[in-house]
Amino acid sequence: MNFRSDNTAGASDEVLAALIAANDGAQSAYGADEITRRVEHRLREIFENDVVVFLVATGTAANTLGLSCVTPPWGAVLCHAEAHICVDECGAPEFFTGGAKIVGLPGIGCKVEPATVASQLAKMPAGAVSTSQPAALSISQATEAGTIYAQDEIAALAEVARSRDLAVHMDGARFTNALVTLGCSPAQMTWKQGVDLLSFGATKNGCLAAEAVIFFDKTRATEMAYRRKRSGHTLSKGRLLAAQMEAYLKDDHWLDLARRANQAAKHLEEVLFSLHGVRIPWPREANEVFAVIPDGTFGRLQAAGVLCHPWPTDSLPPGSAPRKGETLYRFVTSFRTAPEEIEAVRRACLEATPRPDRMIAGS
Amino acid sequence: MNFRSDNTAGASDEVLAALIAANDGAQSAYGADEITRRVEHRLREIFENDVVVFLVATGTAANTLGLSCVTPPWGAVLCHAEAHICVDECGAPEFFTGGAKIVGLPGIGCKVEPATVASQLAKMPAGAVSTSQPAALSISQATEAGTIYAQDEIAALAEVARSRDLAVHMDGARFTNALVTLGCSPAQMTWKQGVDLLSFGATKNGCLAAEAVIFFDKTRATEMAYRRKRSGHTLSKGRLLAAQMEAYLKDDHWLDLARRANQAAKHLEEVLFSLHGVRIPWPREANEVFAVIPDGTFGRLQAAGVLCHPWPTDSLPPGSAPRKGETLYRFVTSFRTAPEEIEAVRRACLEATPRPDRMIAGS
Amino acid sequence: MNFRSDNTAGASDEVLAALIAANDGAQSAYGADEITRRVEHRLREIFENDVVVFLVATGTAANTLGLSCVTPPWGAVLCHAEAHICVDECGAPEFFTGGAKIVGLPGIGCKVEPATVASQLAKMPAGAVSTSQPAALSISQATEAGTIYAQDEIAALAEVARSRDLAVHMDGARFTNALVTLGCSPAQMTWKQGVDLLSFGATKNGCLAAEAVIFFDKTRATEMAYRRKRSGHTLSKGRLLAAQMEAYLKDDHWLDLARRANQAAKHLEEVLFSLHGVRIPWPREANEVFAVIPDGTFGRLQAAGVLCHPWPTDSLPPGSAPRKGETLYRFVTSFRTAPEEIEAVRRACLEATPRPDRMIAGS
Amino acid sequence: MNFRSDNTAGASDEVLAALIAANDGAQSAYGADEITRRVEHRLREIFENDVVVFLVATGTAANTLGLSCVTPPWGAVLCHAEAHICVDECGAPEFFTGGAKIVGLPGIGCKVEPATVASQLAKMPAGAVSTSQPAALSISQATEAGTIYAQDEIAALAEVARSRDLAVHMDGARFTNALVTLGCSPAQMTWKQGVDLLSFGATKNGCLAAEAVIFFDKTRATEMAYRRKRSGHTLSKGRLLAAQMEAYLKDDHWLDLARRANQAAKHLEEVLFSLHGVRIPWPREANEVFAVIPDGTFGRLQAAGVLCHPWPTDSLPPGSAPRKGETLYRFVTSFRTAPEEIEAVRRACLEATPRPDRMIAGS
Repeated sequence: MNFRSDNTAGASDEVLAALIAANDGAQSAYGADEITRRVEHRLREIFENDVVVFLVATGTAANTLGLSCVTPPWGAVLCHAEAHICVDECGAPEFFTGGAKIVGLPGIGCKVEPATVASQLAKMPAGAVSTSQPAALSISQATEAGTIYAQDEIAALAEVARSRDLAVHMDGARFTNALVTLGCSPAQMTWKQGVDLLSFGATKNGCLAAEAVIFFDKTRATEMAYRRKRSGHTLSKGRLLAAQMEAYLKDDHWLDLARRANQAAKHLEEVLFSLHGVRIPWPREANEVFAVIPDGTFGRLQAAGVLCHPWPTDSLPPGSAPRKGETLYRFVTSFRTAPEEIEAVRRACLEATPRPDRMIAGS
Repeated sequence: MNFRSDNTAGASDEVLAALIAANDGAQSAYGADEITRRVEHRLREIFENDVVVFLVATGTAANTLGLSCVTPPWGAVLCHAEAHICVDECGAPEFFTGGAKIVGLPGIGCKVEPATVASQLAKMPAGAVSTSQPAALSISQATEAGTIYAQDEIAALAEVARSRDLAVHMDGARFTNALVTLGCSPAQMTWKQGVDLLSFGATKNGCLAAEAVIFFDKTRATEMAYRRKRSGHTLSKGRLLAAQMEAYLKDDHWLDLARRANQAAKHLEEVLFSLHGVRIPWPREANEVFAVIPDGTFGRLQAAGVLCHPWPTDSLPPGSAPRKGETLYRFVTSFRTAPEEIEAVRRACLEATPRPDRMIAGS
Repeated sequence: MNFRSDNTAGASDEVLAALIAANDGAQSAYGADEITRRVEHRLREIFENDVVVFLVATGTAANTLGLSCVTPPWGAVLCHAEAHICVDECGAPEFFTGGAKIVGLPGIGCKVEPATVASQLAKMPAGAVSTSQPAALSISQATEAGTIYAQDEIAALAEVARSRDLAVHMDGARFTNALVTLGCSPAQMTWKQGVDLLSFGATKNGCLAAEAVIFFDKTRATEMAYRRKRSGHTLSKGRLLAAQMEAYLKDDHWLDLARRANQAAKHLEEVLFSLHGVRIPWPREANEVFAVIPDGTFGRLQAAGVLCHPWPTDSLPPGSAPRKGETLYRFVTSFRTAPEEIEAVRRACLEATPRPDRMIAGS
Repeated sequence: MNFRSDNTAGASDEVLAALIAANDGAQSAYGADEITRRVEHRLREIFENDVVVFLVATGTAANTLGLSCVTPPWGAVLCHAEAHICVDECGAPEFFTGGAKIVGLPGIGCKVEPATVASQLAKMPAGAVSTSQPAALSISQATEAGTIYAQDEIAALAEVARSRDLAVHMDGARFTNALVTLGCSPAQMTWKQGVDLLSFGATKNGCLAAEAVIFFDKTRATEMAYRRKRSGHTLSKGRLLAAQMEAYLKDDHWLDLARRANQAAKHLEEVLFSLHGVRIPWPREANEVFAVIPDGTFGRLQAAGVLCHPWPTDSLPPGSAPRKGETLYRFVTSFRTAPEEIEAVRRACLEATPRPDRMIAGS
């Protein structure tokens, strides 16, 4: 019952099988192979757009290489203060951009609001040489809190960004988990709302190591091949990435994997919520459940073998901060999370008093 | 008959099987898994040294992350003028080091000589703030010309480097190909001769994407975890790298793969040399054959399906430059090169007049 | 009546005369001259410490070169959210450090408190590779709000910093203005409280362009000569910097200049405070006065020729934010500010209704 | 008799007087002052071109800031192997560009030839991601050997550069010394031959610290204000730079200063050449004299108080390398070099046997 991360699982059987199948025969090195070509074609189909695609092995590479193409060294990237690029990449965006400033903004449930972005932009006037120049807005979909931006929320953020010529970047490490919840098309969740470039994650959702940087605005992609190469992210045996991605995107496999993870999270949320004293600060929307849990209750879960991480509380809604004797935890499910695991959590919970009432904040 | 690169092959069956086996079950993310621990242990055994190991997916990452740990931004890395780090990584070492200078030195067959290193050091005095400060010497084993440094040659270079406190780095993209030729132990080819850190390549010799940065001098490794993370080279599902490397290093698998590639190159060299007008500028020592070939002869090889790259001629021995109507080519074999492929080349060659005499330069 | 900045004045007569005197004769280039040696000696005397000194022409260079010597690319510098290094240098610290993270902390009157620093450190655990590693604490003395850290406040901050091995940097662009207010020795305001390195500003207080990076901890200074050279801050005719600094530090000249500027600010504060509706959010301590001024009143000041900048309100004490029809302004005085200028402001104020009561926040 | 550098002199009387005159009154900070505006106007007049101008205090800043505007991190700057930017700036161009490659080319007398540039370009194919992409050609006028490119030589180099869309940069640390020798207009020596940007040096020729980065191609200048600010090269009291430059460029002052320095070098060359055994490897063209001097002869000069630097011999014409007992020296004169100093050298020389014949290589 490891809910620490969706990185703890391996690859799906289909993805693994594709990797094996791709192994035979000689293929051109450094991404000049045929499988890579097919993946590019497939992504153009999926996004209904003549996208430019670059495959890399890690999410950090995808995010920072993409951002470095739209942010000069004297630029600033606006994002949520708990965004992965802001606090979890050891300064990778600063490194890849040559020293741009990553500006973390507040926002409940790790979502930034247009007014917050506008207010920050006002503090960094265009052309004022003493301040880093805002160059990109980066939003995570789903966010680090497992919440999701609705289509019109993305559009509203993009509009503010556009008012100052900022590029709009989407960190889609959990893109598909958000997509299946919204039930819209990939195009509707991205470029149709004004997104310029996307880190399209596949690793957390069934691949071993495969992410795609997708440019909807081609003109922003011209530097990417050089940047990828000189950062060591151009794999010599490029088929490793392409074969995974091809299998991942075949038919509805990627969507199915995300649905499985989300469904597991939904069940887990119900189980946790049934516990007396547990509060859910925002409703689950993707494959992550956040819960404020009394320490005693959590002790029983731990004793039963439940693994998960405590979490920073800065983005909690007003009034919902953990009280003495409570802690905020994050639970992440994956396509591999088995119903039996949730069931086991439920059994562990039974030992605690079930709650008399039932209400999830915001739902 | 693709002799363009040892990157065109996939992984060995054993490596692939290990990847599949490692896929099941949850593993801690970001290299904190058990397989990674076992690989570290195995490398300590192989190198007879309490090495510090970092796995990455590409040779560029291995070389440049390692070098960045021993070279400050105002430092200089001395290497051969045709070294991969000097001309084939799109400025990656400059990027990772924060702007160090990569100083390319001349040398026949892509080997640098101690006197050349000493002479360059004299031009860059210690403490003179106007010049980048020499910080590392990087040698490739096997070199980009497929040649090999003997143990005492490595020791002599390390001695010059040590005289100015330079770290000694070995680019071992084809480490094992050199090792089986020399027939010495990994320790004898590295730290016993003064090598401080090694890019231990496995991708070209049977893995899909797996390299290890190995520090023999532990004190130089303290920055590495941060550097790897912020450059996007810390894989979330670290088992991907570790499982490959574990299978690669099991028993003599890595050595066997290199022996196969070298043997194929040996046969190819014989075949090419048998052709009238073909000159071999330096004897094959690893898995690469270089040959100056009359254009007409090469046309017949091409017609038969032989693929290979023309090559820069700067490192040729005096007097052996291609004459009008000749071109220098590089042929690379891999563990996958089949005897039938060499045989097919032989047959293609038969259509050309076989040479009357037989002599390889330097042999 | 230009109160926009202490950069609008030229140099003091004494400083200028020294520059002229130093012009004759040949001097060794690049800071190897005798005047530079004498300045180093004088600073060792002033700071009662065997300091290592590097002269540069700008405050941005002083701050960022100094910080880059104590902060690795994966490091973080903690400072106030309105610190000059955080918002006014176009990303210079990120550039010089190779991509470190500048973390802005809240605090009233631009002063950070030990508890705030400790709380931020807790979010960035030592050795956690996903987070930039805290490497330095930078405080401004006087601050960007013209406030001053008392000796024991500096000591308390340094103690928190020391608990995680952070270097303590002081941005002393207005060092002397703070010093004469505190009335302590330079040593007492710096290394005796735990400061490791100091940007010792002279430009704003009577030089044309001269700052000194002063290392109290010599071991941190080893990289500085290379960093200064490669950032273009090693002046060929180094006497330009040294001659200014020598005259500036002669006898009590530097102290006298700061006293003049502070005295002018004191008078200006009194004048502004006498105006009906004007609020002083924190008492003046150095050569800057901040005042929340009714827009109508400010219009009259402007009409009389008063020049100053509106200012961000994030650091105001709770409850003192400008109300509708009010704006926060910063007034800066310099050694050149003439009593007549203050008198002219007073006359302009007379046209407005003088206030019936009198109270300065915190005083 | 200090011939070590043209940096050993101070400023001309005119420049110094202007600095004093500019000191009074308040001026807008950070280069927004009126004197800066006038200097920009004057430079547009001098260059007969609507140039964009940025003043900085050092030649390193001028060169590297300018180059960083035309060279991406994955770019390469081609220049002579002894160019100041290649060997004398501690990796400054690598720092400012974010890791571009500075490629040093051979050439007699520190001049690069079009064919050499073309040959290097052929090794770095456009669009090949494994190689840094050539982005700029930088030539020094006068060169580090004191030689000068004729107008048609500049045009020929620019033509090769243009064939691959390289920007053409001129390092004009000794611009005026070359200009007065060629006797052409500033326009003819720069943009009319294809130069895109110029480091216009004034420090070595009569200022204390003042250089201008001049963009003939405005579109390349858009990043400059941010780059200058974040590298700490935007002086707060910008009048310091502008006042020097204004006086320097007034009427023919700058030309007169250079003529004086060149004339002194001419006399010094005659004096040195008159000595038995002294060889002049290339004729003096600006304010530097290079001479291969027998060690005994040099000893007598030293005894008489002559100071100068020994020099690398890589750029000597074939056959002119110093023989045993000889050394190559560089002598630099400045506007301050007095006829008496040359006369004193002459007297020192008299003690050595004067040469029977007279011939300067290439003249």
